[in-house]
Amino acid sequence: MRIDIITCLPQLLDSFFAASILKRAQDKQLVEVQVHDLREYAINKHKQVDDYAFGGGAGMVLMIEPIAKCINLLKQQRTYDEVIYVTPDGELFGQKTANVLSLKQNLIILCGHYKGVDERVREHFVTREISIGDYVLSGGELAAAVIADSVIRLIPGVLSDETSALTDSFQDDLLAPPVYTRPADYQGWKVPEVLLSGHKANIEKWRYEQSLERTRQRRPDLLAE
Amino acid sequence: MRIDIITCLPQLLDSFFAASILKRAQDKQLVEVQVHDLREYAINKHKQVDDYAFGGGAGMVLMIEPIAKCINLLKQQRTYDEVIYVTPDGELFGQKTANVLSLKQNLIILCGHYKGVDERVREHFVTREISIGDYVLSGGELAAAVIADSVIRLIPGVLSDETSALTDSFQDDLLAPPVYTRPADYQGWKVPEVLLSGHKANIEKWRYEQSLERTRQRRPDLLAE
Repeated sequence: MRIDIITCLPQLLDSFFAASILKRAQDKQLVEVQVHDLREYAINKHKQVDDYAFGGGAGMVLMIEPIAKCINLLKQQRTYDEVIYVTPDGELFGQKTANVLSLKQNLIILCGHYKGVDERVREHFVTREISIGDYVLSGGELAAAVIADSVIRLIPGVLSDETSALTDSFQDDLLAPPVYTRPADYQGWKVPEVLLSGHKANIEKWRYEQSLERTRQRRPDLLAE
Repeated sequence: MRIDIITCLPQLLDSFFAASILKRAQDKQLVEVQVHDLREYAINKHKQVDDYAFGGGAGMVLMIEPIAKCINLLKQQRTYDEVIYVTPDGELFGQKTANVLSLKQNLIILCGHYKGVDERVREHFVTREISIGDYVLSGGELAAAVIADSVIRLIPGVLSDETSALTDSFQDDLLAPPVYTRPADYQGWKVPEVLLSGHKANIEKWRYEQSLERTRQRRPDLLAE
């Protein structure tokens, strides 16, 4: 899989893709992540990529020309499954969308910043608009990183133990059960005895019941689906 | 405001808080963000902070002792409004929670990684559990950054133009209207004429109608609230 992220602030993403599982996934050549600096596609020598909004009002808007240049250049090199724009008014991102995207070959993720991108970019270049939640961020960079992270960790071979992703929350519409590790007793706070019993079937049963109970209490909507 | 982020992978967050508005907010002393490396509170010389889950199964669990040590030390230094744990089974984060948190003085955000933290940490130290959305990430670091970003940008003085945050999506339960910038005509794709008219009242009316229409189409649930 290849993910191209287009942003006017590439430095925001530097350390994120250089560490943890995202680095390992790239080292293993399971995924290639390229971050493109919009300023390299700027329309003038001042490296301008944004301008005031027509009609007035606070906040800058990313111009269509640098974005169009960058996307067109990438499209000349390969075919993209989706050109994703991350925006709070997009479709809400969830584990099911992460699963779907993890099966794609080539993705472009376009990050807005300030007030967002010129609407004509969304009309003519973007194939899918995704929101990671009902809140506003200072730019799309974190949202792009969230999408990339949740998608990349699902690619077979990325997690050291593949069964790990399958027991996460949401994969079966249940929240994950509580987890405990050593020490078994910390200042009188003890680990549930069943987990120390070594009795596999009882442990599985306890975990399933805890998952169900936690989902009932915290997210009954997941059970209703 | 002060935000203390506790993580076993501080390098993931390095570049994020060193750029953009989060850097400016810190430079202006409107917010102080401290990232704490859990390994500095490790229980042994191997810098161990995680261990296998009791009861077996894939994935490591962050141990209670290093986290307890770090949180206790921070609490000796000041009073915290909340100790937030970012987890997919927490309450769903949204703009209203961002508004509430932006009024706090001191926050701790604890990042899980791998399978999460020992449940006893959640029972005894955490005061609020927050999820940024229904998807699983490889760790809580991105979620902590998302919460910090959305909260910090609401602190008065952080955005260069304060009216900018007030016209964002969600602040009034409406999605933001489309935005456009130069050129007015790009390869035949034109900016709506009203935005070029200079007629303030018409522009405001158009924007409101567009917001309403976009919200109706994309997020009717926001209007029903």
